[in-house]
Amino acid sequence: MALIVQKYGGTSVADPDRIRAVADNVAITKKRGNDVVVVVSAMGKATDNLIALANSVSTTQSGREMDMLLTTGERQTAALLTMALADRGVDAVSYTGSQVGIITDTAHRKAKIVEVKGDRVRVAIADGKVAVIAGFQGVSTDQEITTMGRGASDLTASALAQAMDADACEIYTDVTGVFSADPRIVPQARKLTKVNFDEMLEMAGAGSKVLAMRSVEFARNHDVPLHVRSAFTWEQGTIVSNEEPSVEDPIISGVVTDMTEAKVTVLGVPDRPGVSAALFEPLADANVNVDMIVQNTSTDGTTDISFTMPKADMAQSESIVQAIANEIGATEVTHDDGIAKISLVGAGMKSSPGIAAKMFRVLADENVNIQMISTSTIRVSIIIPSSDMERAAIALHTAFGLDSGADYSAPLPERK
Amino acid sequence: MALIVQKYGGTSVADPDRIRAVADNVAITKKRGNDVVVVVSAMGKATDNLIALANSVSTTQSGREMDMLLTTGERQTAALLTMALADRGVDAVSYTGSQVGIITDTAHRKAKIVEVKGDRVRVAIADGKVAVIAGFQGVSTDQEITTMGRGASDLTASALAQAMDADACEIYTDVTGVFSADPRIVPQARKLTKVNFDEMLEMAGAGSKVLAMRSVEFARNHDVPLHVRSAFTWEQGTIVSNEEPSVEDPIISGVVTDMTEAKVTVLGVPDRPGVSAALFEPLADANVNVDMIVQNTSTDGTTDISFTMPKADMAQSESIVQAIANEIGATEVTHDDGIAKISLVGAGMKSSPGIAAKMFRVLADENVNIQMISTSTIRVSIIIPSSDMERAAIALHTAFGLDSGADYSAPLPERK
Repeated sequence: MALIVQKYGGTSVADPDRIRAVADNVAITKKRGNDVVVVVSAMGKATDNLIALANSVSTTQSGREMDMLLTTGERQTAALLTMALADRGVDAVSYTGSQVGIITDTAHRKAKIVEVKGDRVRVAIADGKVAVIAGFQGVSTDQEITTMGRGASDLTASALAQAMDADACEIYTDVTGVFSADPRIVPQARKLTKVNFDEMLEMAGAGSKVLAMRSVEFARNHDVPLHVRSAFTWEQGTIVSNEEPSVEDPIISGVVTDMTEAKVTVLGVPDRPGVSAALFEPLADANVNVDMIVQNTSTDGTTDISFTMPKADMAQSESIVQAIANEIGATEVTHDDGIAKISLVGAGMKSSPGIAAKMFRVLADENVNIQMISTSTIRVSIIIPSSDMERAAIALHTAFGLDSGADYSAPLPERK
Repeated sequence: MALIVQKYGGTSVADPDRIRAVADNVAITKKRGNDVVVVVSAMGKATDNLIALANSVSTTQSGREMDMLLTTGERQTAALLTMALADRGVDAVSYTGSQVGIITDTAHRKAKIVEVKGDRVRVAIADGKVAVIAGFQGVSTDQEITTMGRGASDLTASALAQAMDADACEIYTDVTGVFSADPRIVPQARKLTKVNFDEMLEMAGAGSKVLAMRSVEFARNHDVPLHVRSAFTWEQGTIVSNEEPSVEDPIISGVVTDMTEAKVTVLGVPDRPGVSAALFEPLADANVNVDMIVQNTSTDGTTDISFTMPKADMAQSESIVQAIANEIGATEVTHDDGIAKISLVGAGMKSSPGIAAKMFRVLADENVNIQMISTSTIRVSIIIPSSDMERAAIALHTAFGLDSGADYSAPLPERK
């Protein structure tokens, strides 16, 4: 008898029809002889609606009270799914994060898991029940209700899978798996049967929305393989695991595109120690999420610093940066929200030099101008004009052999 | 420094504007130097919406899961009100029923309070904070989340007022107090400055919706005076207490009307022991809430039994009653949903005979036919055709001296 943890995201449980469809899938999994632990997100836009409600009553929102408010969304889904399972003859019981002993630190809205007790889940499973758990939440060492950040229901699922020593952790979402590129931008994109955790982390960092970075980090660190799949088509998805790519695997796993960032450039910055700190500390204090930073070697005693951040933070950072620029004697600040980020991600890069050079050649041939470059051991990211993004992504996808219908990976094992 | 418990009902916190208005009132109360404990209901139709959602995903709704679902409504209001208080510079903290130690028995959806610990409320108050508590809910002796029935936020408020030895318990609602009659039916109705708990209990039983019966019972048994008042006009309302009426008080406090019931009559019932049990036990098992029961003395070896129950239960009870009538050899079952119940309630009745006789005379003069009669020591209820209700209520209100603009009661003490 296998123990399977299944996590269903917000779109998968967005309305009563979807909840019934999910109940059908849980019931099938259970009736095949598996023990099942289910983790659910809030229904569709429920969390957004609660945030809007909070904004409409108050501008002073402590983390503690936001956590009290937002955790109700997942609790509602958990209770509703449990009722739908009862209709299907499946004995189920819902629990809050607190009830199953997901113990976190005291950092409201971004709490870290300290311990997963899971006693009540074990008892429920031993009694032959399906345990349905409200994701995203825990209880702090101070007995307060906490949340672990957006997308943290995946984290709840991986943490429970690890604590319960589950045989599988299935992450159901609204896409059929992890793709070699966004199919809306690159029509030739294909579903990957497997991805390495390090690749998945780089993809998340590069803008892929399939899995939240913290959940992938947890799953990697605790070696909990994730099966990312669709709650709409139920087909086999993508296995994300610690498995190192073999020599037969492609060097590049995916082309990740991101149009959510804007670029700020500070020109004529005096080249002396402490200037970067003066610029980026106030942005960090204001919670502006700076992504890529590029600074060139000084030639005439001044230098230019460019960085990217979410477009949503642009207005806030603009005034901060302008003030600092004046302070440190920089000549000008420019903004550009007409940019896109393209990243190549592949664990095979480590043993395969020349990927960046080939990338730049492809883009040069496409007459695409590169504005910024940043690399890691298994990723190359560039900033280009957003108008060139689609063309560049398609060209890179083809040039790195990702268009092929052939699948380099071994077939998935049969579903239990 | 006084400790004031304030409870705000669903309409009082129905939308962001209402929540801000309530926050203003809490802030004023706090800034006058009081300690304040707030109990809130779910926003407006939130509970109804959750029940509709449950009905749309499942027909199998265990009490446990409904309690998991429905308790989220009050928790949302508590967090939102706490944020709105922060905007007003009031240091507040929200708690679930479980967090403040409202310990109940294990009867989901209608749990009874076993104990109120209140430790966290005491700490919050000692720290100078306003404690905002999600009403209606507790945690059972089995560590499960429970609810105490509809309207039970009043119960939460009275229980906390008692546990904390509060100086006042204010129940804010959408009416300005307890009235001598429903002003929509009797335009001369006036607000009562005070009502005795026994009267309030009879009024609730007779169909008054101002306070739920269980909350009044608790408040009476633990001697917690309630101040029922409006969260829309904020004016002084009605004090409900154990104070016995004095000789200057009117004999009748109110005329209560109720059009929510229907009448069933079983004709030609064989007059032998066990017949009533045979009829009413199955109705009780089916959770049909039978109100008045009238059975006349047998004359010809058979008798007629009439009873009233909520119109909503009519369809269900119809088939049950017909089956039993056949079984016990009754001749016919008739139904009538064109009835109304009028009750006179007044603690002064105990020492004032002849109230029922006067009531029947008034109705006779109005040519109103009385179908059923039921009495207690401080209440007389009658069933009449619903078409006569308005006329009868107005006539009784006048005949028993309730129209007078003069107020028999002493003025309320100044608000702290």
